Amino acid sequence: MNPNTEHLYPVILAGGVGSRLWPRSRKSSPKQFLDLTGNKRSMLQEAFDRVQPLTSTDHIYVITNVEYIDIVRTQVPDLPAANVVGEPAARGSAAAIGLAAIHLQQRDPDAVMAVLTADHLIRKPATLRQVLAAGVELAQSGTLITLGIEPSYAETGYGYIEMGEALGEYNHRIARKVVRFREKPDAATAQQYVQAGNFVWNSGMFIWRVDAIMAEFARQMPELYAALQGLAPALHTAQAESAFERYWIPLQGTPSIDYGVMEGARSASVFPVDLGWNDIGSWAALLEVLPKDDDGNVAHAQHLHYDSTNILVFSEKRTIATVGLRDMIIVDTDDVILVMPANRAQDVKQLLVEFKKRSLFRFLD
Amino acid sequence: MNPNTEHLYPVILAGGVGSRLWPRSRKSSPKQFLDLTGNKRSMLQEAFDRVQPLTSTDHIYVITNVEYIDIVRTQVPDLPAANVVGEPAARGSAAAIGLAAIHLQQRDPDAVMAVLTADHLIRKPATLRQVLAAGVELAQSGTLITLGIEPSYAETGYGYIEMGEALGEYNHRIARKVVRFREKPDAATAQQYVQAGNFVWNSGMFIWRVDAIMAEFARQMPELYAALQGLAPALHTAQAESAFERYWIPLQGTPSIDYGVMEGARSASVFPVDLGWNDIGSWAALLEVLPKDDDGNVAHAQHLHYDSTNILVFSEKRTIATVGLRDMIIVDTDDVILVMPANRAQDVKQLLVEFKKRSLFRFLD
Repeated sequence: MNPNTEHLYPVILAGGVGSRLWPRSRKSSPKQFLDLTGNKRSMLQEAFDRVQPLTSTDHIYVITNVEYIDIVRTQVPDLPAANVVGEPAARGSAAAIGLAAIHLQQRDPDAVMAVLTADHLIRKPATLRQVLAAGVELAQSGTLITLGIEPSYAETGYGYIEMGEALGEYNHRIARKVVRFREKPDAATAQQYVQAGNFVWNSGMFIWRVDAIMAEFARQMPELYAALQGLAPALHTAQAESAFERYWIPLQGTPSIDYGVMEGARSASVFPVDLGWNDIGSWAALLEVLPKDDDGNVAHAQHLHYDSTNILVFSEKRTIATVGLRDMIIVDTDDVILVMPANRAQDVKQLLVEFKKRSLFRFLD
Repeated sequence: MNPNTEHLYPVILAGGVGSRLWPRSRKSSPKQFLDLTGNKRSMLQEAFDRVQPLTSTDHIYVITNVEYIDIVRTQVPDLPAANVVGEPAARGSAAAIGLAAIHLQQRDPDAVMAVLTADHLIRKPATLRQVLAAGVELAQSGTLITLGIEPSYAETGYGYIEMGEALGEYNHRIARKVVRFREKPDAATAQQYVQAGNFVWNSGMFIWRVDAIMAEFARQMPELYAALQGLAPALHTAQAESAFERYWIPLQGTPSIDYGVMEGARSASVFPVDLGWNDIGSWAALLEVLPKDDDGNVAHAQHLHYDSTNILVFSEKRTIATVGLRDMIIVDTDDVILVMPANRAQDVKQLLVEFKKRSLFRFLD
């Protein structure tokens, strides 16, 4: 164990529903519990594997919906049961982080919390570990730290962070002051950001001292803070369920961590970093990111084709045959087969609206 | 029963393998035994239904591969067992027709044989019956009659028949002399044929007296004729199997009925006719021919889509979901799913070459 990470607690957020990767990702088994990269480890398992070398296993927490607790325990059996924290209902990222924070507060007054995602691809895990260790150092000042992804193109689907002056070097990484958080830009603005050079993507990964984030909750999100104060004494007691009922359930509509805390934080810092990161926000992202075979296709299935290229094929059981196809996504599951051009992959959500309209919930759950 | 059809024997050729409609059509259950139009009757059953009002059921013959005899008996249980004639191996259309002819010769010296296809769509069955009755009259002269399909566009995949003078009217249908049979033309030639107005498609359906076709076999295809003469006495006897071994198996390479007989026939006639005919030579043909739903799709499956049109979807068990698709074929079976643009449907045969290369015969059989 790296000595300067002894107070580090990686907190993996794993409560998402991953609807953009339907039909493989379903409510009963969303994206983070699937092996989407073909390496026989789920995205959650990969998130665990990435931080496991950095700390002792009992420092790693997973926050998820109570529905998924059994899946998490099965997929990460090394994790102590108490480290799998269930939310009885999704109340946004700030609430999930707050819930983790009160667990850590009770355990270690010097806890440094690294908020990590379970459903993003990170192809440079050693870099992640290096920057997390850097974050532990910087976090001692009380600043709230974001990991900022160096943008490779003018994406309009992410928030951006405008970076200012350098704050110094921590574990061989340069930290910078956050000038401002910027919401998802239009195409022209995104282009400006990328050209300017001092903008990074907001990755949704953070590092901070637990006392620092709790102080910001108290200052900026007093309702959430009060709820967490109500919940804290009931954790690990027979009163937990009724406390969640009383304090957690009413948190509907609580702002996200970005809106609720980061944008107005007294001190916010950023490590710009190239993690080989991708949020796999659609099937098209997987087609782009995964290694291609000799014919330029990504086939997680037996794929036989004549003159097909840039095809993503997913099937556990059946052979997929294609003729003369280009830029296409084909996802086969037991009950439904999805076919769409790669450039329409964002419209899966429109399709799910159709399913809901017809009450075909069996294909969604 | 129409009195002038008492010597009519419809002979349905049902030995094809239908590889262009793979993966639904397989060696073990080819095209003619499938319900491709969604009306719960196979193409063979529809072929039987079309001629059944014209004659007594025991006049109807089906020629097929011995492998398919059980399927034929199951699908057309009304047919007497002796009317299902098995070929131990496919030896082309002339040989199949010859085999039917020797059966009929033994039964009725005045037999008129109507050669029909089991794997084509005919949306005007009453017109077919009318022209078959007309053919029985005209056939008495000893002429070999083809049903010629009035071309709706300049197809290059069919043979054409150049028609000459009218021979008269038979059962309200005009018959014409055949000037010449023309092989599959190039695009420019096909265009000329269609513009000329006196060309029809060769449908592969014929009417003739059995003695007339046997005489042409004797004159133009003496090897086939000799083999048939060898086979005839053995039919329905214990020697049938060894006779087929001796006379039938060596017929490999025997020309088709078009090349072997029709092109050189002493007398050939044609009824030009609009039968609502389609040979369903590809999945694209089905997309074109079958009625479309409100969104312009042909769905023989539960099809849920967002912004998809001109899609053909076939699945017995699964729901097909599509987003932003155009002009696409999706065929789902238990072990394989085929996806291709409609305009590439002819290339299914190239795909099957790939399967054979890899010895994946389980997907073909």
